[in-house]
This record gives sequence, C-alpha cells and structure tokens, in this order.
Amino acid sequence: MSKQKIELVKNAAGRMVPVEINGEKQIPYQGVGKFIPKGNKYGPPIASCANYPADGNKLVSDLKEALIKSGLKDGMTISTHHHFRNGDLIANQIFDIAYELGVKNLRWYPSASFPCHEPLIKYLEDGTINRIEGSMNGALGRFASEGGMKGIGVLRSHGGRYQAVQDGEVHIDIAVIAAPTADAFGNANGVNGPAASGLLGFALADSQYADKVIVVTDNLVPFPCIPWQIHGNYVDYTVKVDKVGDADKIVSGTTNITKSPDRLLIAELTAKFCEATNIIYDGFSYQAGAGGTSLSIGLYFEEILRRNKWKARFIRAGSNKYPVKMLEDGIVDYILDGQTFDLEGVRSMRENANHVDTSPFTSYNYHGKGNFASMIDVVVLGATEVDLNFNANVVTHSDGYLLHGIGGWQNCLFGKTVILPIPLFRDRIPIIVDEVTTLCGPGELIDVIVTERGIAINPLRQDLIEKAKGSGLPIKTLQQLKAEAERICGVPEKPVLDEEVIAVIKWVDGTVIDSVRKVKISR
Amino acid sequence: MSKQKIELVKNAAGRMVPVEINGEKQIPYQGVGKFIPKGNKYGPPIASCANYPADGNKLVSDLKEALIKSGLKDGMTISTHHHFRNGDLIANQIFDIAYELGVKNLRWYPSASFPCHEPLIKYLEDGTINRIEGSMNGALGRFASEGGMKGIGVLRSHGGRYQAVQDGEVHIDIAVIAAPTADAFGNANGVNGPAASGLLGFALADSQYADKVIVVTDNLVPFPCIPWQIHGNYVDYTVKVDKVGDADKIVSGTTNITKSPDRLLIAELTAKFCEATNIIYDGFSYQAGAGGTSLSIGLYFEEILRRNKWKARFIRAGSNKYPVKMLEDGIVDYILDGQTFDLEGVRSMRENANHVDTSPFTSYNYHGKGNFASMIDVVVLGATEVDLNFNANVVTHSDGYLLHGIGGWQNCLFGKTVILPIPLFRDRIPIIVDEVTTLCGPGELIDVIVTERGIAINPLRQDLIEKAKGSGLPIKTLQQLKAEAERICGVPEKPVLDEEVIAVIKWVDGTVIDSVRKVKISR
Repeated sequence: MSKQKIELVKNAAGRMVPVEINGEKQIPYQGVGKFIPKGNKYGPPIASCANYPADGNKLVSDLKEALIKSGLKDGMTISTHHHFRNGDLIANQIFDIAYELGVKNLRWYPSASFPCHEPLIKYLEDGTINRIEGSMNGALGRFASEGGMKGIGVLRSHGGRYQAVQDGEVHIDIAVIAAPTADAFGNANGVNGPAASGLLGFALADSQYADKVIVVTDNLVPFPCIPWQIHGNYVDYTVKVDKVGDADKIVSGTTNITKSPDRLLIAELTAKFCEATNIIYDGFSYQAGAGGTSLSIGLYFEEILRRNKWKARFIRAGSNKYPVKMLEDGIVDYILDGQTFDLEGVRSMRENANHVDTSPFTSYNYHGKGNFASMIDVVVLGATEVDLNFNANVVTHSDGYLLHGIGGWQNCLFGKTVILPIPLFRDRIPIIVDEVTTLCGPGELIDVIVTERGIAINPLRQDLIEKAKGSGLPIKTLQQLKAEAERICGVPEKPVLDEEVIAVIKWVDGTVIDSVRKVKISR
Repeated sequence: MSKQKIELVKNAAGRMVPVEINGEKQIPYQGVGKFIPKGNKYGPPIASCANYPADGNKLVSDLKEALIKSGLKDGMTISTHHHFRNGDLIANQIFDIAYELGVKNLRWYPSASFPCHEPLIKYLEDGTINRIEGSMNGALGRFASEGGMKGIGVLRSHGGRYQAVQDGEVHIDIAVIAAPTADAFGNANGVNGPAASGLLGFALADSQYADKVIVVTDNLVPFPCIPWQIHGNYVDYTVKVDKVGDADKIVSGTTNITKSPDRLLIAELTAKFCEATNIIYDGFSYQAGAGGTSLSIGLYFEEILRRNKWKARFIRAGSNKYPVKMLEDGIVDYILDGQTFDLEGVRSMRENANHVDTSPFTSYNYHGKGNFASMIDVVVLGATEVDLNFNANVVTHSDGYLLHGIGGWQNCLFGKTVILPIPLFRDRIPIIVDEVTTLCGPGELIDVIVTERGIAINPLRQDLIEKAKGSGLPIKTLQQLKAEAERICGVPEKPVLDEEVIAVIKWVDGTVIDSVRKVKISR
C-alpha cells in the first residue's frame, strides 16, 4: 500500500522526509521548539456506567473473547507495552488470534518491541500486520530494514508516543495491557504478583485514549488492586491468564558494571568532567541509564556525593540495584522511575514511597505544560553515531540497519546538560562521522561527547568550555577526535542505501526529523 | 440575563425542568441509566513545552499576576475546590481581584461552597459573579433561594461535576487549586505542609481539562513534590502565599458520635438490619459518612466485624479517626478516601499506603467505564425529605430553601444497598412526604429507610424483605411511618414557592432531574 514513490521534502535539519506516510499527512521537522501545535487534544468516546457491570466484574473468558468483544477488525490499531521487555508473552498471542480470525492489515503500536517478538515476522509477511509503529530491535528491525514491512514504520520517543496519542495523531482501537496484578474492574499495577516487573507507565496514554482497553493478568486480586497504576475506570475487559510475562527478562543485558578498560575510562572522564564543571552539587539530579558505562558513571557520581557529604535530589531512572542502594542509604531523596531494569528496582518501588513510578506523560510528553526531562541537571545517553555538529543517531548502525528504538533518548536531550559518553569506534568503525546515517537528535541539544581519547564540548556551551579550562581533562574538538579515530581505523565507507523509505523518525513534537532507507541487499 | 420566563418540560420523573438555562440547551432527565451519551470527551488545547520554562519554575509573584497572565476576563468560568471546606482562604481572594480588575459576569464553579464564602454575596449582587454552579450551603443558598443570583444555579454531584467537565458541558477557563504542598512546577498534594488537609481529588478534572491552571500553596518544596496528587504537567502558574487554608476547619461540625437517643436508636437499627439481612460479611465494603448518626453506624459495623472475626475489604470515606483506627487495627484492608474529615484522616493518608486517595473520576464519574460507587455493599446516606416512592431530597428544606449541596450523595445511590437512616421528623416537621420539594435521587435506587420508629424496605428489594422476616426488627411501610409522624406533628403545609427557577439539579449523567424554585418572601 505504501510502496509507491512517495514525495519527499527537505526539513529544517536538511533531511529529506515524506510529506505523507501510510496515507496520513506529515509535518516536516521545523527546529527545536519551533512547531507550536494548534487545536485540541483528542477526546475519546464518552462512556457510560450504564454499559458496564455494576459489580465491577469485567472478566471475560480469555484474550480472544476480549478482542472479539472489543470489535477487532481489519485495519485497526492494536497497542501493547514493553514492561516485560524481552519477557513479554501477550503481544504474540494477540496476533495469533488476529491471524486465526482472518483479520488483516493491523497497525501494531507497541511502546517497544524485543527479540521475543520475532515470531511476528510471519504476520508482517502475510499482511496480518501492516506495519509496526514503535522501536524494532534486532530481527524485526532487520526485517523492516530490508523492506519486508508492507507499511512504513514510524519511530517515536516514549514522550512522542504519548504526544501522538494525546494529540490524536495515533488513534488506538484496542489497547492490551499485560499487568502483573489487577482486579476484575481493571485497576492494575506492576509491583505485585509473581510477574511483578515494576510499573505500567508506558500504557498510560493507551488506557486514557484507546477506544477499548483490555487488562490481562495472572494475579487477580479482589477489588481494590492497590496501587492502581492503571485506573480500572478506563478499562473495558479483564482477562485472567496462567502467566502474563516473564519478569526475569526485564533485566537488560547490560546491567553489569562494564569491565572494559576503555569504557571504564569513559565513565571516569564523564564523572570528572561533571565534577570539574560543577554540574554535580548538593541537590543535583541526573538521569541514570542501564548500560554498563552508565552504571559506572552512576557509581562515580555516588562516590562524589558521598565524598562531599551531598545528596542528589532525584535520580531519573531506569532503576536497578545501584540507585536503589543510594535511595536506601539516603544519598538521594527520590527515584523518579520510568522503567525498572531489575527485580531490586521492582522491590524498591513496591516498598518505598520515595521510589516513584512515572510515565511518559509526567516525564517526557513535549505537548504538556512542561515535563520532567528539562529539569534534570545532567543526562547521560548513548549514540550509534555523532556528526561534527553534535547531531546524533541512536536507531541505525552505520550500515543503515535499523536495530534500535528511540526510547526516552530524544526526550532526555532537553536535560540541562546532555552528555554522550561513547567509544571513539566500535568494531573498528568510527562513531564520529561527517553525516549521521539517521538524525535522531539535533546537535544544539547535545552538550558534551566523552570518548576514551578526549572530551568535546559543544561550542554553544561556552559556560562549560570556560569551566573545563585548567581542569586537566583532555578537552578536544570533535574534528580532532574524528581525525584520531580515522588514523586508527581508516575513513569508513558510507553505506549505499536504497531510495525507498522504510520508516521515519518523529521528533518529540510529532514532526518528521528523518527517514530511514531500505538497505540494499545482494541475496 | 436569565430572569426572563424560561420554557419548562416535564422530565421522566414528572418534574418540570428548563429546556435551556444560562443560554445553554439542557437534556431533561430520562430515567436511571437511560441517557446514553454520544460523542467524545472534551479535548483541552494542546500545550507545548516550548511555551513553559525549561527549568520548571512556574512561580509568579502573586495570585493577581497569575490570574492576569491566565487571561482573566468577563464571562469566564473560574473553578475552586473545597478541600479546606470552611477553612478556604483563596476563593474569596480570586473574586476580590476580579472585582478590583473590573471583571464581570463570572461563573464560579466550586466543588462546594461553605459559610466562609458568604463575603461573595456582594459580588453576586454587583455582577462580578453571575452565578454559582456548585453547592450553596448556608447564606449563599439563602441568597440564591430568594432570587438574588443573576444567573441560574446548577447543582451537580461530585461525580456529575467531573462528568460535566470531561464531557465539555462546563468549560473551565481558569482553575485555582489551593494546595497544602507544591513545587514550583505545580506538582501538588494535600497530605504535607502546615495546612495539610488530605487530598486534592476534587481538583482533578479541573487540572486535566481547564485552559489555565494555577496552583497556590504556602508550602513550596523543591521539585519533586511527592506524592503528586495533582500533576504539574497540567499546571500553568504557581503562587506562594503566606497561608493557603485553615486545615482545622476541615473538621465537619458533625464528627462527634451522636448523643441523641433517637439517633443512636436509628444507628443501632441500621446496623442490626444490615446484620440480619447478611449485608455485612467477611470482605464486605461500606461507605461511611461523617455525620453523627453515620459515625455511630460505623462503630456498630466495627463491633459486628470484630465479634465475627471478619474484615471489611474497604471503607469508602470521608475518613476520620474511626475508620483510621480500624485500618490500623487490621479490621479493614483499605480506606478509599475522597475527603478527609479530620486531621487523623490526613495523618493516616500521609503515612499509610493502604489509606488511598481517590477522586470523583475513580469513585463517581458516571460517564466512565464503571466507577467505584456501584461496587460498595452498603451505603448510608442522609436526606431532608423522602416521598412514599422512596424518592429523596438532599438539597432543600421543606420551606423550599436551598441550603445543602449534593456532594457524592447521588453517586452513592448506585451502591448495592442504599440505606437512609433519618429521623421521622425534624423540628416537628415530618421527613416522609407526599412529594419531595426537590427530587435529587430516584426512589428505585433507595432501598431502605431507617427511622427511630421503624424500617421501611423498598418493595423493589423483595430479597431484603424476605431476609428481614423473623428478624424481630420493626419493619413497616413508608405509609405507616408517614402516618405515625403526622399523628405526632400534624400534616405539614406545603411551602408556596414562586414560579421562577433559581437553580436546577443535575442527575449523574448531566440531565436535569429537577428545578429549584424561588422562595416567596414577605420583607
């Protein structure tokens, strides 16, 4: 349906983007903070208690019945959520049922997809699923990159996903929320039950705005399910299953402190830079990631806090045992958590009122009256590529393959100081390039690049450049760092990509910041 | 503007109601569960973080500046909330400012008004305020009843107030939320700070749907204010004042156990009735009120639970020290609280995760996918009058004066068993009448009337009639009870009211269930 030649225009970042995708008009990226939305939020259909059971019991026999009662039919948008990450057991079942019922041409709108969703490739091939709008990690990304998806994929940040639903850009017909605990009314949480995985914040927009909402759980408790991270007042049907998800698999592959000497050095340089430039102070806040380097940086931050007898006011997380320990030791007042990355995170959120569950609405939605992301003192993020203007890529590799989602990455760029601690090269491919394969984040929002061979500060941040003077840290330009990498690895060849657009990248305001091209394959 | 003759029609309850009020078309009441809304919820304007301070600091110098920045002008709707009950200090200030600025014709949309708001009568007189849509207790009700208000008042239940905002019936221009604790971003709660009064649930709809939202506090904390009962992501401006409210005055005048022998008897009969008809069981739930009789009933319920070694699953409250003690003693699993009625309630909500703050959205909104009210086993409510068909009045006295709000009363009528424990007469005026002065609740939802001289069961509840047989309880008909009262007090004269409609009563679905007439006065 979308394979015809589509018209492209150059957006404010100089990238060629489609004016229309999947039959819907698009707004090209206009610059940071330049596109001001007009109009009103989407208002979902008004419900009436007269149409819901007075005793609050919304249980139906199984997921299939819930989907049929929800009116599952061709062309609908079905949303799911990645609170179980690679341990999700429900999304595949939904599309098995759709296939069984002969339903075609669905839009799958996950908050993220994982390797466990590889079985869905067959439904992308046979037209049960038209396209994925959401991150496509691993095999799904490879499949999409090679032009396998019938529709054009749309990648949004966590905040952009909320924004798109709130603003009515994406109308969800049926949201399916896999919940570790729920009552028959649909109140649900992620902190209790055998599959406790933390929180359900990624499903908030879906619960608020979808036409039909189904809560699936393996731990059904008598009303009221406390806490109710999802309100049953938004829920149409509840379903009891034997096992809703595999919470062990929420553990990211990279929740161990890095042992790589280069990465340890990057972490140390990052922390020293923050200390030298007074970004760390009594009452500061930071965003902790789950990768090995980020974890190490968190430990350095902790050491700086302890040494100075300071406290952080809050850590934005992706939590795991390290920030939990800091919370319990009184080194930080609050963890504002969007996603737990280990079972210690889950436990802490369940037990500690100062370990607070957040959502893309509170943290990231750019079409709100502010959000938390811009209030964070220092944010540490990854990237696959950075260009000489600090523009960065986080979704494609230099060979053009779309292998990662955006997550909260774009949203976090609004932090007060944004640092990308990245190795100068990976597999002998330099990270600093003339032009990123895919633009995900405008350079004006990225302040510092820390590599094992030096630190580059964005010229827009003269304040940081001044403060870093005399620090003894290896401050260099991006040009210098790029030259060093190329001396070691050689100048990499640019991938030759097809004309065809297989996906687009949305900016946090719903505009299109870049296109992802099909990878040329010689089979 | 509204004093011309307005057209009335007879609604499904046989009451004459206006087809249009204050220039807006109305839907007459159609019966319980009969009006099914069409269309979509209201979608407020889409905001952009680009228009809000990146550091989250939304503080302005004072309330006047916040109102001016919010665009205060003639004809706007201004909402406030009654979390401080008679200790509110902010609402009067808003209209002092409006008067000072020469703004006219405002609609005041409080979640309730109290005697402390009597100073606003001068603004109703001079046209600063056109009308109040919300309860008008005491002096304001007397003023409205005598035809003093320029516009027509509209009384809604707590759930109906949420419904009206959600459905776009009431568009709030500026919401002012008086918060015991807040951060500069606008996250706010009611549990902390010197003026801690419990929760902010009545302001939820306003925060979600108003064009502009102002949070006023006397306890400004560094971001993040935890818990955030109100999300700063909905807030435009924050204001710091010396004193935001007088929390001592949240204590209702009737939070003492009744000492009246008649009322104690009514309480005892109510409890015995519930025990005899097996309404109380291990895991049951009930709605506890704050009046003296209700408190006594709660104590009887507690005694029954303790004697049987049972637990209640939850108490819906209006909390005070009695349910708090039960929670702490393990006699109830959860308090689901919409409003704290004493400082013990506030303390418990702050300290105890099982004392949960609720909102009209979770508990009462009829235009949701169910709500909590219909899941409660037994609900105990008051009334000013009941007719022979169990129809009840809760807003006017038999002299026609509009002296009370609806509160959650209409919403609670959806409980599984609804009991009105009321004295047979007050000041020698019988409570059971041929026709209620104002219809607030349809008799089909009211199951039992308990008086000091007998218990009447609605013939629709044959199950209860059967269960009460052989209980030894004084089961009578409403006709019998009415005759008894009239033997003692005589047959009361019906008040002669003016034709003019000074207010209407909305049903939970936004339809008009009755009109309130002007009281004829001979000054």
